[in-house]
This record gives sequence, C-alpha cells and structure tokens, in this order.
Amino acid sequence: MIQLNHFSFDQNSILEVCKRIKPYIHQTPILTSQSLDKMFGANLFFKCENFQKTGAFKMRGAANAVFSLSDSDIKNGVCTHSSGNHAQALAWAARLRNVPAYIVMPNNSPAVKKQAVLGYGATVIESENTLQDRERNLAEVMQKTKAFFVPPYNDYAVIAGQASCAKEIIDETPDLDIIISPVGGGGLLSGTAISTHLFSPKTKVFAAEPILADDAFESFYSGILQTQRPPKTIADGLRTSLGEKNFEIIQKYVSEIRLATEEQIVQAMKLIWERLKIVIEPSCALPLAIILANPQDFAGKRIAMILTGGNVDLSSFFENLLSQK
Amino acid sequence: MIQLNHFSFDQNSILEVCKRIKPYIHQTPILTSQSLDKMFGANLFFKCENFQKTGAFKMRGAANAVFSLSDSDIKNGVCTHSSGNHAQALAWAARLRNVPAYIVMPNNSPAVKKQAVLGYGATVIESENTLQDRERNLAEVMQKTKAFFVPPYNDYAVIAGQASCAKEIIDETPDLDIIISPVGGGGLLSGTAISTHLFSPKTKVFAAEPILADDAFESFYSGILQTQRPPKTIADGLRTSLGEKNFEIIQKYVSEIRLATEEQIVQAMKLIWERLKIVIEPSCALPLAIILANPQDFAGKRIAMILTGGNVDLSSFFENLLSQK
Repeated sequence: MIQLNHFSFDQNSILEVCKRIKPYIHQTPILTSQSLDKMFGANLFFKCENFQKTGAFKMRGAANAVFSLSDSDIKNGVCTHSSGNHAQALAWAARLRNVPAYIVMPNNSPAVKKQAVLGYGATVIESENTLQDRERNLAEVMQKTKAFFVPPYNDYAVIAGQASCAKEIIDETPDLDIIISPVGGGGLLSGTAISTHLFSPKTKVFAAEPILADDAFESFYSGILQTQRPPKTIADGLRTSLGEKNFEIIQKYVSEIRLATEEQIVQAMKLIWERLKIVIEPSCALPLAIILANPQDFAGKRIAMILTGGNVDLSSFFENLLSQK
Repeated sequence: MIQLNHFSFDQNSILEVCKRIKPYIHQTPILTSQSLDKMFGANLFFKCENFQKTGAFKMRGAANAVFSLSDSDIKNGVCTHSSGNHAQALAWAARLRNVPAYIVMPNNSPAVKKQAVLGYGATVIESENTLQDRERNLAEVMQKTKAFFVPPYNDYAVIAGQASCAKEIIDETPDLDIIISPVGGGGLLSGTAISTHLFSPKTKVFAAEPILADDAFESFYSGILQTQRPPKTIADGLRTSLGEKNFEIIQKYVSEIRLATEEQIVQAMKLIWERLKIVIEPSCALPLAIILANPQDFAGKRIAMILTGGNVDLSSFFENLLSQK
C-alpha cells in the first residue's frame, strides 16, 4: 500500500490499470546482450519502450488517463501542452477513444513531431516557446473547447499508467537488485517506484539524470522541489522540471538519484545502438550512463533499465550517408 | 526435392540443419509496423537478422559449416577471406566449436570490424584489397595451417545454413505471397529459395539488388554468370559477385530480381530506422527499396523481407551528436 498526502495506490489499483490499457499498448520486449553483460560484469535487462505504440512509454500514461475518464468528462476531448512524446501519445489515445485532442506545441518544434501529431488526427495550436505562452494558449483552448486537460506527468492517472512498465519488467525478470529509470518530469520514475514497492519491494529504484538538467537530483537531496535551471542537455526528453506529485512519490520510494555527463550519455547511447541494434533517444541512455560512470557499484548485480523511447531525429545521419560513401 | 547438377536438398536435409544450428543462433523476431502497412497498402513482415548472433544472418551459414564438419576435418581449424559479417560469424562459430579461425582481411577494413574478429578469438591475416592478394594469402594460410576453408557463400553447407532463416519465416508467417531477400554473393538468396520451394511452394521469392551492383540481375536475365563491375553502392554487404553454386539455385527457384537506386536504398533504410526503431545496415534496406520503387506491384500482398544485419558504422552520427545539440 502506498499512502500519499492526497492519494493512494495498492496492488489492485495498478493491476486494474494494466488491464485497462492492455488493448492499446504493446507488452514490449526485454533485450539482453552477452557482450554488455561481460563488459560490466553484471546482468543487464533492457526494457524496450522504443518499440511502444507511438514510439515511447508515454502511451501508457496517456492511455490510462484517456480510458479512465467517464464518457461525460471526455465528451469534449482532451488537451495538453507538449512538444514531445506525450503529445503524440495523447493524440493517439484520443483517436482510439474517438474524441478530439488539442495539443499546444511551441512554434519551434521540429516539423516531424508536428506532422506526427497531426497524423494521429489531433489539432495543433502553436505557441511561443515559453512556459507562460504555452500555459496561456492551453487555458484558452480549455475555455473554448471544454476539453479535459491531461498533464504530461504531474497527474495520478498518468503516473499509474507509467507504473505498468515496471510491473511488466518485474513479472518477466524476477529477483532484480535494481531498476533504473531516467528522470525528467518524474512520471515514469514515480510510476516505477510505485510498482516496484508494491510488487518487488526488495528491488531498489535508482534514477538517472543528466548533470546539465539536475533538478531532480537537487530536489531529492535537498528535500525541497527545485526548478530546472536553463537546461542544455542532449537528452531533450529530460529537460522538464520535476512535478510536485511525482516528487512526493520519489522522495518516499526511490533509493538514489545519480548524474551522468553528456559524454557518458553519448557513449552509453552508442553502446546500446551498436550492441542491441536498436534506435533509442538520448534520454534512454541515462541508466546505462550512470553505470558507465561508476561500474564498480553495479558489478555482480541484476539490473533492469527502461529505454524510454525511440523518437530521435535521424535526418543528419541519413543526409550524410549518401555523401560520405 | 531440389536436384542440382552436383547436389540435392530435401525437407529433411533443411530440418537437420535447423536442428544442428539451433543451439548457436537466435530465432530472431519478425516485426511489423501499422504505419508502414498503411503507407504501402500491404502486410509487411520484417525478419530481424540484425538481432542475430554476431549481428547478421551469416552466423547461420557459418554455424552449419563449422558444426557439420567431422572432428578430423576441423582439427586444424577453419579459415576464410572476408572483410564483413562472414568473418565475424566464422570466428564466433569456430570459437563455439573450440577450434582456431584464420581470417584474411583487406588492410583497409574498418578497425572496428578487425577488432570484432579479434575479439571473437580469431587470427587476422592482412592482405592488399585485391581479390588476387586475398586469395594468395588464403592459399598460404591453408598450406601453413591445414585449416578448412569455409567460403562466404559459394558453398552448399553455408547455403543450407542460410536456408534456416526463410524456414523460420514460413513457420511463423503462413500464406506469404512473396519473400524478398537482398542479393550479394547469393548465399542468403539461394538458401531462401530452397526453403521456400520446399516448405511454401506457392510463395514467390524476389531478390533486391542495388543498380550500382547489378551483377545478379544481369546474370539472371542473361542466363550467363556475370562478374561485378566496380561497384560503388552504399550497400557495402552487396558488393560481392554472385557465386556459381548460388546462381544455379537462383536461376531455378527465384521469380524476379529487381533493382533499386541509392536514393531509394537510403529512403527505405530511414523508414525502417524511424518506424521499426531498429539499427540495420544499408544492405538490409534493399527489399523495402524495391517496394518503394514500384509500390503498385506489391499492394494488397503479404510480403516478408529479410533484414540481413545491423553492423553499421555509427561513428559519424555520434561524433556529430554532441557538436550539434
């Protein structure tokens, strides 16, 4: 049982979530690599949310939020502000429930991301790339459309959806010593902490964060929620600030938050592409990057890592390919 | 029953091969993509040999060759000349059977490929990058070591090993209209044609080849084995010339060979990386590239494609990553 100030979770509530979203998500594979196990002297398990519907774990939270709303609450559709994977996930979940989705996106979002959201049938509202303007636009959308706001991470339905990922890991890979999740807004990390505490209480939950976006680290060890300083990390999925609801769960059920340099992030990302032959976003590399940073702390252990998504811009690689041959 | 001039295959011989190599290879997954199916109006199945041991289908042929040799034939080890995936596969298969492997590699092979072969415990002999010098060096190695020569594709044991891939596809995905294999030396294509003829005779086998390395196309439609003109295609795994033994099988059991441009190859490769979230070599993109070239010929059909391997040099992508952010 997990008792928070304003909410609680137990095994049944998470099992219900898993059942609710099952028709709409993939049970993603867990990959292993002999060469990586040998390199780190550990048993490493990689949960491949890059293969998830819409290309990222965000589909779990969006699906749970959308499908747990009553018909009357959702009759005018859903809305959010996001430039990333939550936008695509919410657009797709809304389409599956056959209601409209309104997504406020900064006007400097990559064209490919906007195209993806439009491709899922959502309406895109462009804003300036400031939090104020995004929030102002979202408020306008809510007033005009009466659509229901589904936040990207600071929301218990979203958190419970993300918790389904660690539940799958625990079911398939028993006796884990550690599960490592990257941390940005904290939706995945808090969901992971909930499922791990409820279903595998002996397993520790670690979080991995870029040094260049270390608000969760600072918050966790100071005990006071810090906002993100202007972040410039390559791990673009982790540039958001930790949410309040997420922070409360993380404080209670996460063992450690560790940091990685940009170089360690790129080195870990390259290892995963080369050894596992899969395409992952930079944010996904954080768990392996913190192992790279201090391998002696992880040797001999059974460790699962969540690879959060595969939506990476490959244009430059493919543009160079023809000219380089 | 497949009766060739100097050899024959039947269902039992392929089933025996599958059983022999099973402990040493992965039964690789078959991926699908709703968005690609929608884009092409067809049911597309991608057999992921990029997840195979040593990163490519070549492990199948090498394992069958190495494990079908008698103890006395293999007592001095095995040897070959190859700069690519066959080198790594033979090195690893030899290690599994606990015999030495001697690999003649051109001195301009990428360091990363040489490192991989050395990492599997093989001895590397450097040669000039000409066929003559490679063959001279190989002859010298054979004389000195008495190691058994395992050719990369022009060999019935290797062909039978590669045939196991299509057998897995047919078992998992019934009622296919077409299986498409890329063609370089012809090992995979001839193996695919054998298994398809024996186990799913209504399914057609298509081959896909770069316009810039079109010796198989020219050979197939002229009826006379042509040598490769200096090939410059980006699909480096397909630069080799078709083998004689492969050609006989291909003439009898392949329906069509189709060509793709370099631009179609890169476009197909990008689609696979983006939609399936996997890392594949340029050679793997050929099957989808020929569909891109003439989609109307493939609409409404059930089509399996073999993604041959994932050993691609990612250095430039990762070097650019930190500087571009």
